[in-house]
Amino acid sequence: MVRPLGIGLIGHGGAGKIHALGYRSLSSYYDPLPVDPRLVGVCTSSEMTGAKAQKEHGFEFHCADYRHLLERNDISLIDCCVPNFLHRDMIIDAIKAGKHVYCEKPLAMNLKEAEEIVKFSRQSAVKCQIVFNYRFIPAVMRAKQLAAEGALGEIFSFRGAYLHSGYIDPHRPITWRLQRDKAGGGALIDLGPHIIDMLQYLLGEFNSVFANTKTITKRRPSKDGQAVEEVDVDDIAILQLKLKNGGIGTIETSRFATGTNDDLRIEVDGSKGSLVFNLMDPNWLFFYDATEEDKPTGGRKGFKRIETVQHYPEPAVFPYPKSTVGWSRFHIASQYQFIKAIALDLPPEPSFEDGLAVQRVIEAAYLSSEQGEWIDLASLVPKI
Amino acid sequence: MVRPLGIGLIGHGGAGKIHALGYRSLSSYYDPLPVDPRLVGVCTSSEMTGAKAQKEHGFEFHCADYRHLLERNDISLIDCCVPNFLHRDMIIDAIKAGKHVYCEKPLAMNLKEAEEIVKFSRQSAVKCQIVFNYRFIPAVMRAKQLAAEGALGEIFSFRGAYLHSGYIDPHRPITWRLQRDKAGGGALIDLGPHIIDMLQYLLGEFNSVFANTKTITKRRPSKDGQAVEEVDVDDIAILQLKLKNGGIGTIETSRFATGTNDDLRIEVDGSKGSLVFNLMDPNWLFFYDATEEDKPTGGRKGFKRIETVQHYPEPAVFPYPKSTVGWSRFHIASQYQFIKAIALDLPPEPSFEDGLAVQRVIEAAYLSSEQGEWIDLASLVPKI
Amino acid sequence: MVRPLGIGLIGHGGAGKIHALGYRSLSSYYDPLPVDPRLVGVCTSSEMTGAKAQKEHGFEFHCADYRHLLERNDISLIDCCVPNFLHRDMIIDAIKAGKHVYCEKPLAMNLKEAEEIVKFSRQSAVKCQIVFNYRFIPAVMRAKQLAAEGALGEIFSFRGAYLHSGYIDPHRPITWRLQRDKAGGGALIDLGPHIIDMLQYLLGEFNSVFANTKTITKRRPSKDGQAVEEVDVDDIAILQLKLKNGGIGTIETSRFATGTNDDLRIEVDGSKGSLVFNLMDPNWLFFYDATEEDKPTGGRKGFKRIETVQHYPEPAVFPYPKSTVGWSRFHIASQYQFIKAIALDLPPEPSFEDGLAVQRVIEAAYLSSEQGEWIDLASLVPKI
Amino acid sequence: MVRPLGIGLIGHGGAGKIHALGYRSLSSYYDPLPVDPRLVGVCTSSEMTGAKAQKEHGFEFHCADYRHLLERNDISLIDCCVPNFLHRDMIIDAIKAGKHVYCEKPLAMNLKEAEEIVKFSRQSAVKCQIVFNYRFIPAVMRAKQLAAEGALGEIFSFRGAYLHSGYIDPHRPITWRLQRDKAGGGALIDLGPHIIDMLQYLLGEFNSVFANTKTITKRRPSKDGQAVEEVDVDDIAILQLKLKNGGIGTIETSRFATGTNDDLRIEVDGSKGSLVFNLMDPNWLFFYDATEEDKPTGGRKGFKRIETVQHYPEPAVFPYPKSTVGWSRFHIASQYQFIKAIALDLPPEPSFEDGLAVQRVIEAAYLSSEQGEWIDLASLVPKI
Repeated sequence: MVRPLGIGLIGHGGAGKIHALGYRSLSSYYDPLPVDPRLVGVCTSSEMTGAKAQKEHGFEFHCADYRHLLERNDISLIDCCVPNFLHRDMIIDAIKAGKHVYCEKPLAMNLKEAEEIVKFSRQSAVKCQIVFNYRFIPAVMRAKQLAAEGALGEIFSFRGAYLHSGYIDPHRPITWRLQRDKAGGGALIDLGPHIIDMLQYLLGEFNSVFANTKTITKRRPSKDGQAVEEVDVDDIAILQLKLKNGGIGTIETSRFATGTNDDLRIEVDGSKGSLVFNLMDPNWLFFYDATEEDKPTGGRKGFKRIETVQHYPEPAVFPYPKSTVGWSRFHIASQYQFIKAIALDLPPEPSFEDGLAVQRVIEAAYLSSEQGEWIDLASLVPKI
Repeated sequence: MVRPLGIGLIGHGGAGKIHALGYRSLSSYYDPLPVDPRLVGVCTSSEMTGAKAQKEHGFEFHCADYRHLLERNDISLIDCCVPNFLHRDMIIDAIKAGKHVYCEKPLAMNLKEAEEIVKFSRQSAVKCQIVFNYRFIPAVMRAKQLAAEGALGEIFSFRGAYLHSGYIDPHRPITWRLQRDKAGGGALIDLGPHIIDMLQYLLGEFNSVFANTKTITKRRPSKDGQAVEEVDVDDIAILQLKLKNGGIGTIETSRFATGTNDDLRIEVDGSKGSLVFNLMDPNWLFFYDATEEDKPTGGRKGFKRIETVQHYPEPAVFPYPKSTVGWSRFHIASQYQFIKAIALDLPPEPSFEDGLAVQRVIEAAYLSSEQGEWIDLASLVPKI
Repeated sequence: MVRPLGIGLIGHGGAGKIHALGYRSLSSYYDPLPVDPRLVGVCTSSEMTGAKAQKEHGFEFHCADYRHLLERNDISLIDCCVPNFLHRDMIIDAIKAGKHVYCEKPLAMNLKEAEEIVKFSRQSAVKCQIVFNYRFIPAVMRAKQLAAEGALGEIFSFRGAYLHSGYIDPHRPITWRLQRDKAGGGALIDLGPHIIDMLQYLLGEFNSVFANTKTITKRRPSKDGQAVEEVDVDDIAILQLKLKNGGIGTIETSRFATGTNDDLRIEVDGSKGSLVFNLMDPNWLFFYDATEEDKPTGGRKGFKRIETVQHYPEPAVFPYPKSTVGWSRFHIASQYQFIKAIALDLPPEPSFEDGLAVQRVIEAAYLSSEQGEWIDLASLVPKI
Repeated sequence: MVRPLGIGLIGHGGAGKIHALGYRSLSSYYDPLPVDPRLVGVCTSSEMTGAKAQKEHGFEFHCADYRHLLERNDISLIDCCVPNFLHRDMIIDAIKAGKHVYCEKPLAMNLKEAEEIVKFSRQSAVKCQIVFNYRFIPAVMRAKQLAAEGALGEIFSFRGAYLHSGYIDPHRPITWRLQRDKAGGGALIDLGPHIIDMLQYLLGEFNSVFANTKTITKRRPSKDGQAVEEVDVDDIAILQLKLKNGGIGTIETSRFATGTNDDLRIEVDGSKGSLVFNLMDPNWLFFYDATEEDKPTGGRKGFKRIETVQHYPEPAVFPYPKSTVGWSRFHIASQYQFIKAIALDLPPEPSFEDGLAVQRVIEAAYLSSEQGEWIDLASLVPKI
């Protein structure tokens, strides 16, 4: 009989909701589970949201102060799904309370806060995992395996982008995601963590960054429509990057990419092979094997659309391995990875250190955009 | 406070599992729910499977005889996920017991059984819905709307296929799906219902059928590998069809389609427009509007990859409308449709009548393949 | 110094034009040429067209009677680009005059005429090649190599289609292509030869055929718009076929395929591999190698988009091998194949025998559509 | 009767060859032609190449000194297809001799030479057109029309790339394209003109540039394999750009893009619409109309694959408008544009001024890469 793992969830917006459903679904996807996840408490800013969330998922209680979750002995995992500016305090408090922490990206509002969080996590024995859920797309896991096998060879160049179109309408009211004091930045801090992490995960660490950011819509109506508020964050950020291993490339994050839906894309050119992936086509990984024999008229070289299966991070029992998967599936695999790390005392992956590395790239990019020159990531060495 | 809807599930293979998870997930996808689905009992042929299913989903009990589910007053919905040859008796018993029935496709082993089932369902007030879950793909719902708006015009021809590759290995042991006395047929009765129903749903009823079926691997090892068993069903079935409205076309169902995964595809050519859809690319519907103005050098005609959203069958509250969806999502929408039909006393859709119409096409196809000539569907008029 | 090859062209519509340009372009594409093609005479029904064609391509003369071409000693190749009903007499006269014949598809109006043509060609030493130019798409040549290497294994099933949309407008006036006494049939005899030949070329001979044909627009305006004329040929033809080797499949030819342009498509499922090709995407061949090792989480199986180069039928010197090619390029390769057959006394490929084999399938299909049953191709054994 | 236009071609490598074939093919593609192009003389560095070129295309003579072409009264168009370092003198001499000049990209080795060329062209009445042949892809012409109609709205961001893979093999010997003193640069000056011009053509002028260049293979064997030579140009160049109208974006040019063939790609995001094009898929333009009505469940928004036809720059008579086209076709349209400009005294487009504008971006990019900062294009104002 596996032991229970009590979960306290902070926040029940889009992320909180899918996390809660994910914990409830784990037993259907992985068998056996190494622990028995139990939804104990949910903390939300509004009573109504809390009551609804409790009923929807079967939490034992809801509350308005996250510290009530930290006090509970039957809760050992805190899942943090709140706006960026709240991360630092909640996470540090949770670590201090001896809770494992599962935190939505980005790790924090800025590099300083991220470093503080990581300092505490390093001093503690709790497990801390950041939600870079796109690492758990079967196609991306397969890409990681290929990279680890050396199938890409020397990296020449890469193109990365995470493109949304949700803020093109200038009449869309302001949200916390458009305010620097709540989000820490704009498109880059919102969308950037996924694509920055994915590229570092596959290709190794970045060395330096050059960036250009732009705000298209500088004023938006307030939520109640009664006022006009300033947008002080980037709508588009374009980065050039150099990898430590020598490769060069670009990343674009945009909330003004007309016609896109949830387009996270990577292309990597290496001496031995090339990778292409697009989140809108998540069931396939495109791979070009440059080491295949080249014949003038009888070769077989070409991009292959590799069938990637759902048996990740280890063979899932469900659903059919050849059926299509979508966005919610990757959260479930990410959560499975975390509860397994807790149950079996494995290092969590992606860790808060990975979150910190991403935060450093973002900080460097914002700095570069201001200064108009390359920023060496080593110049932002953590003071911890 | 919505009233509870007690559910009894028969069978916990692939279908049973996704249904059970679906009921549990409904509250996250649709808000508010018109009833509160409760997993009461699960019936499986093996005690071990039953105990596991109970634990996995939180059923109150498990049992080995489906009649225990029918006896319960706190169960009003019977979900039937068992091999085809068991459908007839279980469904008729459930209807007699006054239970609503949600049944996996095909409705029955053959036309005679399907007619018997429908006869009972017509005499009863219970709701009966068949699982043609691909009707609930947002792209397919959008296709239905376009068809209903007349955006296709007169149907010229269509191409349909449902292609799998799972049985190509001749060493794969026999299963009930390869035995006529358990399944009623092969690729056609297994994969055909989805594609036959989808085309009738979008284009109207078929009038006549010509078919050719083929068995590639005629003998397979038994499950224990100790014996060799005959395969007496089709591995591939190719149908030509005529629609009542005059359109003509083809359907291929194959379990020997090398390189395919879960490739249900349709193409429809009409006087006003054309549709293309592929289940392996479920987030898009391709539509060609032939009524747009044609200019020699400045036209805009072309296939459009329509963004289809997840707000089906009515706006779902979850997940993000622009994220990708996969196979499991369509079950959830199908189940929502059924519980809503029960709660609000609406006609279930797709109904057992739709299941019967599909069964008639399958029966005609098998007959045609034997006789080598067109079979008029009217010649198989139900005797009910 | 290579010897000249004098060419007489009959007809200067779309086909004649591209052939004439092709001969003129050969020296740029293949180096060295085994003969020096010279455009000597062009025969057209109208004086104006003939004069224009002469000037456009640099023919030495034009004429209105094809027999003037046959009389010339400096013409040794007759290229036949006239409506179907004119093929028989012109080709037989050309063969009798000792000219090599290059003939646009179909070989003739019907099976009887095709047999007569082939009878004469067999009795003569002249070279006769039919224009199945799509055999010369690099991707198709690559497909042929793969098939010849056994990379497909046992053929399970196939899907073929050649889809156009040019006749959907009911106001488009009648043309000879819509008249049985001039064309011998409709969509099937016009588009069918390409797709029927391609499948036989890749997969082997057909054994039997079942077909359904349909005329959508039964009356059209005459060319001058003053009268209404009957359309007595098929707008759509759908065939089911059995290969001698056991594989089964379909071919659709349609002039009413809304939204298509020049969509010749094939899909072949075999025990060892699968092929996909579409003429609208002519630079790629999609191939699935089913013999690659299957690993649960680390496989590389998938459809590969093989880069096919332009070095066909033998390495061309031009243009860049990685640039895209389009429709006109395949004619040039086909013509090169023919002049090489003449110069080096090689068997022409595709031969008139290949044209006859296609004609037999078409004849069987029309017969089947009338009779509503399978037609065995052996029952149409040539009487020659 | 149209008057003849005598043509002198300098260079018979890949570009010279396609140009020569293009002139010869014009009469088949456009009818009537406003002049009658006649291949008079060809100048090549080697006698053997010259003799072959003469024979291949029917030139009246060949020569080794381009001044022989300039002396001829029966030559009025000089077509310049030689390595970059030879452009300046030949073009200026041709202009001085009163010849119209058609010049392959780039206009010159560097900005200074380009400015000198343009100075002379401005002082002369001859027509000068640069070969940006990709402007003449039907899909690109259609894109230009859409941009001109305002269908893109305000430009938010863009992604451009021109990716080749031809130099990945480190054993490939040095060529003039890898030597700064012959080519003026590497991937950027070779591939960049096409993509830089296309973006400026569609979106307007650039304002400033930031670039990073990289040489992967720094030494290569000499042509005879006996020595090792330095590569002093870029293998990859990545640019960030700002448009005068405010849009921002990237351009990558690479000769080390593994798995690519001839991949020129653009993506443009605008407030009213979005464009996507890829030269490897040249028959389609993808367009997203953001002004279409958005409905929660019944919208038709999406990327449309616009059918673009071959009737450009004005309706061509050949080939079939729905057939696929490839690389060589765009040269023919570009050449038609030029001979029409000469015949009808129209401004040539793209002009040498367009070539100069591109050269300025390239010069700025190389400067930026050295200095690590943004370069304002206005700071490179021509001194002419």
